[in-house]
Amino acid sequence: MNRIGVFTSGGDAPGMNAAIRAVVRAGIFYNKEIVGIYRGYEGMIEGDFEEMNVRSVANILQRGGTMLKSARSKEFRTPEGRKKAFDQLKKHNIDGLIGIGGDGSFTGMHHLFLEHGMPYICIPGTIDNDIPGTDYTIGYDTATNTAVEAIDKIRDTALSHNRLFFIEVMGRDSGYIAINSGIAGGAVSIIIPEEETSIDELVEKLNKGGKKKKTSSLVIVAEGGKSGSAMEIAQKVKEKSSYFDTKVTILGHLQRGGSPTYFDRVLASKMGVAAVEGLDQGKTDSMVGISHHEIIFNDFEKIMNQPKDIHKDDLRIAKILSI
Amino acid sequence: MNRIGVFTSGGDAPGMNAAIRAVVRAGIFYNKEIVGIYRGYEGMIEGDFEEMNVRSVANILQRGGTMLKSARSKEFRTPEGRKKAFDQLKKHNIDGLIGIGGDGSFTGMHHLFLEHGMPYICIPGTIDNDIPGTDYTIGYDTATNTAVEAIDKIRDTALSHNRLFFIEVMGRDSGYIAINSGIAGGAVSIIIPEEETSIDELVEKLNKGGKKKKTSSLVIVAEGGKSGSAMEIAQKVKEKSSYFDTKVTILGHLQRGGSPTYFDRVLASKMGVAAVEGLDQGKTDSMVGISHHEIIFNDFEKIMNQPKDIHKDDLRIAKILSI
Amino acid sequence: MNRIGVFTSGGDAPGMNAAIRAVVRAGIFYNKEIVGIYRGYEGMIEGDFEEMNVRSVANILQRGGTMLKSARSKEFRTPEGRKKAFDQLKKHNIDGLIGIGGDGSFTGMHHLFLEHGMPYICIPGTIDNDIPGTDYTIGYDTATNTAVEAIDKIRDTALSHNRLFFIEVMGRDSGYIAINSGIAGGAVSIIIPEEETSIDELVEKLNKGGKKKKTSSLVIVAEGGKSGSAMEIAQKVKEKSSYFDTKVTILGHLQRGGSPTYFDRVLASKMGVAAVEGLDQGKTDSMVGISHHEIIFNDFEKIMNQPKDIHKDDLRIAKILSI
Amino acid sequence: MNRIGVFTSGGDAPGMNAAIRAVVRAGIFYNKEIVGIYRGYEGMIEGDFEEMNVRSVANILQRGGTMLKSARSKEFRTPEGRKKAFDQLKKHNIDGLIGIGGDGSFTGMHHLFLEHGMPYICIPGTIDNDIPGTDYTIGYDTATNTAVEAIDKIRDTALSHNRLFFIEVMGRDSGYIAINSGIAGGAVSIIIPEEETSIDELVEKLNKGGKKKKTSSLVIVAEGGKSGSAMEIAQKVKEKSSYFDTKVTILGHLQRGGSPTYFDRVLASKMGVAAVEGLDQGKTDSMVGISHHEIIFNDFEKIMNQPKDIHKDDLRIAKILSI
Repeated sequence: MNRIGVFTSGGDAPGMNAAIRAVVRAGIFYNKEIVGIYRGYEGMIEGDFEEMNVRSVANILQRGGTMLKSARSKEFRTPEGRKKAFDQLKKHNIDGLIGIGGDGSFTGMHHLFLEHGMPYICIPGTIDNDIPGTDYTIGYDTATNTAVEAIDKIRDTALSHNRLFFIEVMGRDSGYIAINSGIAGGAVSIIIPEEETSIDELVEKLNKGGKKKKTSSLVIVAEGGKSGSAMEIAQKVKEKSSYFDTKVTILGHLQRGGSPTYFDRVLASKMGVAAVEGLDQGKTDSMVGISHHEIIFNDFEKIMNQPKDIHKDDLRIAKILSI
Repeated sequence: MNRIGVFTSGGDAPGMNAAIRAVVRAGIFYNKEIVGIYRGYEGMIEGDFEEMNVRSVANILQRGGTMLKSARSKEFRTPEGRKKAFDQLKKHNIDGLIGIGGDGSFTGMHHLFLEHGMPYICIPGTIDNDIPGTDYTIGYDTATNTAVEAIDKIRDTALSHNRLFFIEVMGRDSGYIAINSGIAGGAVSIIIPEEETSIDELVEKLNKGGKKKKTSSLVIVAEGGKSGSAMEIAQKVKEKSSYFDTKVTILGHLQRGGSPTYFDRVLASKMGVAAVEGLDQGKTDSMVGISHHEIIFNDFEKIMNQPKDIHKDDLRIAKILSI
Repeated sequence: MNRIGVFTSGGDAPGMNAAIRAVVRAGIFYNKEIVGIYRGYEGMIEGDFEEMNVRSVANILQRGGTMLKSARSKEFRTPEGRKKAFDQLKKHNIDGLIGIGGDGSFTGMHHLFLEHGMPYICIPGTIDNDIPGTDYTIGYDTATNTAVEAIDKIRDTALSHNRLFFIEVMGRDSGYIAINSGIAGGAVSIIIPEEETSIDELVEKLNKGGKKKKTSSLVIVAEGGKSGSAMEIAQKVKEKSSYFDTKVTILGHLQRGGSPTYFDRVLASKMGVAAVEGLDQGKTDSMVGISHHEIIFNDFEKIMNQPKDIHKDDLRIAKILSI
Repeated sequence: MNRIGVFTSGGDAPGMNAAIRAVVRAGIFYNKEIVGIYRGYEGMIEGDFEEMNVRSVANILQRGGTMLKSARSKEFRTPEGRKKAFDQLKKHNIDGLIGIGGDGSFTGMHHLFLEHGMPYICIPGTIDNDIPGTDYTIGYDTATNTAVEAIDKIRDTALSHNRLFFIEVMGRDSGYIAINSGIAGGAVSIIIPEEETSIDELVEKLNKGGKKKKTSSLVIVAEGGKSGSAMEIAQKVKEKSSYFDTKVTILGHLQRGGSPTYFDRVLASKMGVAAVEGLDQGKTDSMVGISHHEIIFNDFEKIMNQPKDIHKDDLRIAKILSI
């Protein structure tokens, strides 16, 4: 392994830059050449490559987003597209890949490995924390804090007006951000994709709170819930309860950006170093993860056949605290 | 003037608590009794009053929202409602009022003054900065910074994906937040209620930028624009240009809350002290304002017959900078 | 167990309020009475107690510091002082204690247990993360982020002036904040209490960086290091190297305060609930901890005879990244 | 005027990058060539120049520090040094200068103008707000907010321990940051360079507060005060009062950095555009300033012979509020 290509793919996540920096610096430490691939698989197919050195990654550790940019590529989903990408990698003498992203990115590299034998290690970077094989993905800690800071601001207004707010946070298939920002934000109820929520029970709980304390209430809704969007749930609650002044806020894309927390920067730094060391030691077709402070590696097949469970006990805690 | 009632009304704004604290502390300094009136005109009608002292306002200087809460009152819009409110004020021996809020709050006190002779001074508290007679209203500085912090986060994502974002900020009839957060956020275009925007020109500008630099663009849209909501404008732009990946984010209520900036805390502190001093000196039916670092007072009639202009030159600057 | 006393002790840490809130709410959920004890052991001896309910802990989840206040008590270190404290607890019918603090707080409760049989559970709250028996203590995540935010600001100035900064962070006997804020802040060197640092090696490294890149460098120093304070180390480096413009910044007490991160709020919430449940299930003389997302309990003796190791691998990562 | 050199000089201030960006973009808008001069007068003498375009200033609007770097130059203080600098400017065909910095930077350009006829406009960039001829200097708004955020954190700890804190903020000859962060931080006393402070009066005030409320107190001290540093004042207070647990925190360099507020970004943007327009219109030997929302220009002589007064009324407000 002499020349490693690094790229980011899928939705951007805070800490991706810290991971890129770690890959480049660890690469130099271990006498590898590192090549940056711009715009994910799209740039890989087009050969949008650049040699990277310490200077390339100066002063990016603290920045949100990804300096290598990210993009979706339909072409890469075809064997022909992947052949083109592989040819570009060969042309540039790249003999190993490190890709930072979610399960789509991982699957892409897995196919490239199966079809063309390109060794790779995936670094899990996504704010949703929905990838098995690691306690945490890069970006999740920052995104949850961003959501909580927004919730804190909305609570100021909710308290000032004795108002009910439905706040929609990210997490299409995963309730991590919702549960943790909900507990941290003092939500009266948390609605997640993994569970069905009864509108009647919600209304009953809200009415109880509303009548007793005549104060504000926050309901946190994960965007991909079975019970509908925050807007739809708010509408249903409104119909069954004339009690509250209800408002809806969708936090949306601002959860993706921002300077990463120390946690995401350190996690990304460790994973970046580990990915370079892993490739160097012959590991491939796997993802680096963190488990109880230890770096681990898991094979593609193992991760993809494993569900990522939410911590059930956290929901129990949330209910006790929302009395 | 021995006993002054203080209340907040209308939408909450960061710094309202600093103003309440200043009224209470200045009141004590000048040997007045200060009575807190909860939930604006609604609480005034219901007699939801509480004596205030240094302890009541401890540790609120840095908090968003309003500890006296705010509410809308239909009843107060009727002469009968106002009579009730006045009777409550008399019953509690209140001989002067300080109300913190926007033009609705101001108008309410004006009617109470006309109909019942209750002396008052209004403190302008609203994030929109849309009240004449003062350079700045309480909350505007904080809200604009909150908008800019959100824009900074969205820019991280926009840059990572070469994407076009439409970001809707508050300001129903006023482009202040939009213009200033737009300049501060490096927006390519700013759409405000005070001006008509041509979608064709916007598309042309965006296409030029898109083709030339192939990078991200942010368009800031004030919520009350003649040209439609951010969602509507984004839709129209999308139809005329297949070039961009477009997204919309509505910042919404999170712009209201949050710990006030130093500017809003100092502004609120000065206005709170000035309102107590003004009432004590016999001023009434007027609003305290700030003009070039100096405290000023303006009569209700003067303020209500005066437009609040945006600074036209700021738009010119925004255009030069968005080349 | 019907009536539980809760208090905070030692240095304050962000998240202590979230823990107090969780104890009170979980107490109510399980039909216990909860009594707040003000000013730690000092207030316990003086009988500075207050019944707590949902209202007492309203809107404190997001606040730094501790609403129950904290204080040092020399008297409690004597058997007589502890007898007084126990008598107060009995007088108020308190039959269980939950104390939030560091090892001093823990030791105090242990003695009260040994001498008077008072059941208790300790919740680890200290920014230093220096208590064994838990992966994380309450406040550490927030304090490290606060340190990193300060480092980010100082880096702006360091970069603008090609300057060398020594930044002293908290951690008298523990390098946790230093190592993690150092990695997250991109420090060229990290000096911790657990390791001897050679000034000569440091100078050599800095000179190399200085000559090669002619740019800024940050050195993070934990306050309690064997190698001296940041000021002393900076002085020694200055003498051996005329190359740099050096500055020292001591972050100091601002690392203690601030609104807790989601992580500290959720950690504190879980630990607060677990402490109530633990006492109810007959657990005592132990500390609640978190280990790989699971709540655990450890006896006093076990924890006090166990060292809290830093993660050695983190130092290795820091060195690879500071090439 | 066809080719304008732009540089930053003196201590860095948040918003300098926004000013550089505005100069470059306005330059392009008006068909000028813009040359960046690195490291202030040092780089000017050495010819450390670079052509600037839209790309050079991409994504810097929101960054603290200065991308053109800053440095002190002893050589430039001599006529020989300035001759060298002027020769470099001529060699690079630069026929106008825009320098961003404090009075040292201004004086430097004034000498270059007198000795060599080089037209220039100064943009006031310094966190101290100590330059006459403008209501605000670039960086002051951000630095004051940074100070207030730190004070808020320290207050959490002060309140938790009933403690007295002395907090030293920047402002060697100017009490602006101290007064405004003091009012915004709820300080019991504010010590500024412009006024003598009696330690006895301070002790009396603190003892009164301490005995009455038994709570925390914050004293804000500007670094350059006649009454000594925060450390010295705290020592004197300690000796005369055994009452308090006192601590000192020196905020130091972290006040310089950080992402600029909207206010500083907009101010810098306006001043940057105005400086280009001013040079183009033949203005020289002057500084751009803002006065009540309007751009103004003042000659060097006028500014240097004018004191920058603090707003006396603000001190009065601070005293009323600290009862």
